[in-house]
Amino acid sequence: MSKYQRLAQQVSQQIEQQVWQPGQRLPSLRRMAADSGLSLMTVMNAYQLLEQQGRIEAVPRSGYRVKDLPASRPALSSAATHVRDQVSINNFAYQVLQASNQPGLLPLGSAFPDPNLFPLRALARGLGRASAALAEHPIDHLPPGSLALRQAIARHYSRNDMTISPDDILITAGAMEGLNLALEAVTQPGDWVVIEAPAFYGALQAIERLGLRAIAVATDPKQGMQPEALADVLKRYPVKACWLMSRYQNPLGFCLSQQRQQALYELFCAHDVWVIEDDVYGELAPPGARAPQPMKAIDQQQRILHCGSFSKSLAPGFRLGWVCAGEQLQRLAQRQFIATLSSSAPEQQAVAAYLDSRPYQTHLRQLRSTLHQRKQGLLHWLHQCMPANVHINDSQGGYFIWLALPDGGDAIELYHQALQLGISLAPGALFSADPMLQRGVRLNASYPLSDKLRNALQQLARLMA
Amino acid sequence: MSKYQRLAQQVSQQIEQQVWQPGQRLPSLRRMAADSGLSLMTVMNAYQLLEQQGRIEAVPRSGYRVKDLPASRPALSSAATHVRDQVSINNFAYQVLQASNQPGLLPLGSAFPDPNLFPLRALARGLGRASAALAEHPIDHLPPGSLALRQAIARHYSRNDMTISPDDILITAGAMEGLNLALEAVTQPGDWVVIEAPAFYGALQAIERLGLRAIAVATDPKQGMQPEALADVLKRYPVKACWLMSRYQNPLGFCLSQQRQQALYELFCAHDVWVIEDDVYGELAPPGARAPQPMKAIDQQQRILHCGSFSKSLAPGFRLGWVCAGEQLQRLAQRQFIATLSSSAPEQQAVAAYLDSRPYQTHLRQLRSTLHQRKQGLLHWLHQCMPANVHINDSQGGYFIWLALPDGGDAIELYHQALQLGISLAPGALFSADPMLQRGVRLNASYPLSDKLRNALQQLARLMA
Repeated sequence: MSKYQRLAQQVSQQIEQQVWQPGQRLPSLRRMAADSGLSLMTVMNAYQLLEQQGRIEAVPRSGYRVKDLPASRPALSSAATHVRDQVSINNFAYQVLQASNQPGLLPLGSAFPDPNLFPLRALARGLGRASAALAEHPIDHLPPGSLALRQAIARHYSRNDMTISPDDILITAGAMEGLNLALEAVTQPGDWVVIEAPAFYGALQAIERLGLRAIAVATDPKQGMQPEALADVLKRYPVKACWLMSRYQNPLGFCLSQQRQQALYELFCAHDVWVIEDDVYGELAPPGARAPQPMKAIDQQQRILHCGSFSKSLAPGFRLGWVCAGEQLQRLAQRQFIATLSSSAPEQQAVAAYLDSRPYQTHLRQLRSTLHQRKQGLLHWLHQCMPANVHINDSQGGYFIWLALPDGGDAIELYHQALQLGISLAPGALFSADPMLQRGVRLNASYPLSDKLRNALQQLARLMA
Repeated sequence: MSKYQRLAQQVSQQIEQQVWQPGQRLPSLRRMAADSGLSLMTVMNAYQLLEQQGRIEAVPRSGYRVKDLPASRPALSSAATHVRDQVSINNFAYQVLQASNQPGLLPLGSAFPDPNLFPLRALARGLGRASAALAEHPIDHLPPGSLALRQAIARHYSRNDMTISPDDILITAGAMEGLNLALEAVTQPGDWVVIEAPAFYGALQAIERLGLRAIAVATDPKQGMQPEALADVLKRYPVKACWLMSRYQNPLGFCLSQQRQQALYELFCAHDVWVIEDDVYGELAPPGARAPQPMKAIDQQQRILHCGSFSKSLAPGFRLGWVCAGEQLQRLAQRQFIATLSSSAPEQQAVAAYLDSRPYQTHLRQLRSTLHQRKQGLLHWLHQCMPANVHINDSQGGYFIWLALPDGGDAIELYHQALQLGISLAPGALFSADPMLQRGVRLNASYPLSDKLRNALQQLARLMA
């Protein structure tokens, strides 16, 4: 397949998943060329191919716009749920990441916290020590992973009043590998998987990769997944697993109350649904507050594979996460052994040594405090400059802010406009196929509110008004 | 599935792949319990279940032995090839790895070189520096990976008279991830893949994981894959890809001559076969000699995805490899982005900084010299103590020695006996389903020849005689 065919295929997939909606204008040739890194000629060929295929139409003097979708497209199944037989978020997510990759861009679309907030020098010393002593533990890093690290994680759970055995923990190459392994272990291709609406795009990608089918269940921006909507879906579909976040959800930021956790958990147990609990933001409670417990804490029936990571709370750029996998551990470990062998040996040793230290507790306190201040600062500025019809969804903890554009608002268009202004954004289409949620935008509030950022946001707000 | 059912399934799969052959005794209850970490009761239940299923039979006062396989088992397709419709090496490979994991065991079964042979302190300093400076390159490690590292790898190729662009290189979490991504990118489930006989078990595992079908092509212990046998297979099967090693092959140790590379490559091109070239031992030429070029060097038609790693030549325990993927790069990068996101940021920076340094060239010289000495030492000792009917396959470079047991020899039995003597071995069943090759044993010659090792090998030789 040549470059222009590949681009045409990408855009075609994006039209299918409503990244580009019927009637909407595609980016100009010039803009698409700049964004994709392809030549003008390649983009022109791609657009012409799409026109031949009947996906888009030329509009005199204003480029191309998307034609109506073919009738075979699945409809919304009910107000509460949105069924996506074939998930295809991956190309677009990758494209957004690549676009955000440009140096000098203000990374509001990034999923990663500001790396300057982390104890990089202390970790560097730990990494150096661990690497120099590697010959002492030549194979300790192989699955299930370093015993010292699994013990340190178990102690960390116990500080949260949870009893987890080191033998139930598998160390993975970041949470992403852990989440993928967990989902793979409890599903077969074609199975139905429940996700939140909106959900972390990694969930959608994993579902796509494994040939699964996703059902997004209505999710309240403050309260989380709605038990009634979930009950309805579980009655109608043979759901095998649910992927959710119980604390500081990405992209909305809510925590599930204990009561709601219990209600959802009982439904999962009643319908034999495995739960993949993505808890990578669990440490990021606001200062002074105690984070609620994750759903894993009430997992009497061993239905929850609980996934964590150090990349949001301690060591960005390290590829180190874990799954509390219980009796599924051997299955996961075998799959990891095949696919990536293991995660990094020195990183495992270095983090194991750091986790129990006093500086770690000090770091966490500072991190939570700084993130809170920065988020409040950005919220304040957004309330000042954003048009009144843009809804700003506040949340406690974490570092994401979710904006909802008004009826007719176009987050993809905004994403392209923001790139021109030097800001990256994460448009709602990354997190949901629901047209209403696609009017959302996720902002990363972990960076300092510089004058440059203020000005760029103000300009963006003017464009939106 | 409960523990005893899982064990029964494992043993059943092993019987299918001839790890345990018809008529052969299974390990005693006690030994299986010790090896698997399961209770005696669990093992007993598993054996009874297998007996009910007709896979094994009780032999009064001598435990259980394997019954004849059901007739549906696929037969050998010809003398030159062995077809494996369903590969199932993974459980056994994982089990061998776990068994070799015990501290104090002499790691002759290990695939990894002695970690004391590596510049751990220099790497530690580099890792520390890279980690402390992480905020300067917050997302440089994301796919396709650090530009500095890709440039350093491209320069490394150019020292081998090969021109590879940094833009064609994808950094992966070790070679294992790279090889898996490469195979996934060029195949669909059900496709046929050619491998060597014997082949690195990672190839078999990847094939199993992706739902592919493997054909092992006759491979000469000194010359490598036989072009006539390959031609025969390519005529009869719609082969999509071939996974092979052109330099210091695992487990046999040979390098492909230029002439043979050319002959094989022409066959691949003529039949539109993608080549996954696993070149992780490519640096380990004997001292004074120049390593032959990999097959990638003659890849005029862009059919070869060339995979390398630093874990055998520079940084054991790091999870850092690469694929020279050419025009397949975007496909691989997107899949990596979904599955593990990226490899470690500090490891990428640290290795990039080290690769161009003078100490690296010094290290490589020393490594090659030490590995050669150790291998010669072990070869000498094996020739002294092994029974005359055990064939010792010598090879230039790398650190593996392949033993072939005589007719009737049982490498699995030998593996269990060696464990009792405190030595781990890698039995032939890990590398092939061919009963003749299953009489092979791979030894890791990278460790010093201690008195303990000499004695243990001598004892083992007595058992074999």
